[in-house]
Amino acid sequence: MENIHIRNAEPSDYPPVISVINEWWGGRSMADMLPKLFFVHFRQTSFVAGHGNGIAGFLVGFVSQTFPDEAYIHFVGVHPEYRKKGIGQLLYHRFFEEAKTLGCRKVRCVTSPVNRGSIMFHLRMGFSIEPSQKTVDGVAVADNYDGRGGDRVLFLKALEL
Amino acid sequence: MENIHIRNAEPSDYPPVISVINEWWGGRSMADMLPKLFFVHFRQTSFVAGHGNGIAGFLVGFVSQTFPDEAYIHFVGVHPEYRKKGIGQLLYHRFFEEAKTLGCRKVRCVTSPVNRGSIMFHLRMGFSIEPSQKTVDGVAVADNYDGRGGDRVLFLKALEL
Repeated sequence: MENIHIRNAEPSDYPPVISVINEWWGGRSMADMLPKLFFVHFRQTSFVAGHGNGIAGFLVGFVSQTFPDEAYIHFVGVHPEYRKKGIGQLLYHRFFEEAKTLGCRKVRCVTSPVNRGSIMFHLRMGFSIEPSQKTVDGVAVADNYDGRGGDRVLFLKALEL
Repeated sequence: MENIHIRNAEPSDYPPVISVINEWWGGRSMADMLPKLFFVHFRQTSFVAGHGNGIAGFLVGFVSQTFPDEAYIHFVGVHPEYRKKGIGQLLYHRFFEEAKTLGCRKVRCVTSPVNRGSIMFHLRMGFSIEPSQKTVDGVAVADNYDGRGGDRVLFLKALEL
């Protein structure tokens, strides 16, 4: 998409993002899942898709401190009016490149089994779904991954060097 | 306190913690602020205070990836029946030691200005409050730190080598 520039996230990006995030998710309460700390302490691996003076999307990720060869994508959002334009893809590609630079060999992320759009997106981006005994609508899920009864689809992608 | 052992957090600690956390906070909705990722990818700097087979408290922290000489404490909880026994102190001291081992020279954390108990605890633990133009009940706060109108008290502690 034209005039979209991907850049590292900064603390000053936090207020404009956090104030619209529930709206971007159609009213779901998402803001608590995205504390400011990611925009302060994980800037190398968190990105904003800027358009003009506004924010069209963002990605928040980090390098695992337990597994230094793994990177993890925690949260991704795209403005509803900017969807289906490849912005998610741009953000993911930028993250993959940075993760490789930082010595990572794989990327992980998780999503909810109800989020079919997210599942399809990750498969298109080259992620595979971690095998599991349990499936929901044909998709392997980690049982009670969130510790409160919620299953999650676990994605893994090897980074090509 | 006797029979309390501090150890690194593990993914298997997540379900017992997340299922009780709102209760430990007197019914406040805290669970969304503590995604499982911390118990998977930040185990070196996250700790559990075990008592018998149960969990008396925990601390979740990390080394800043933007500022490698800074460590950050994101979330700390102590079981209501185990409060005022020095468990928070044990968890913080263990975190400080690990942070030093990992090359950190300072520790940061934030709390809400209404949480007077937390403010007093951090001052006792040797943190100072970051100066600010704005004060709430005599305490300096960062205005709208959370991006949704919420001020925060910002703590900083230098680690003694």
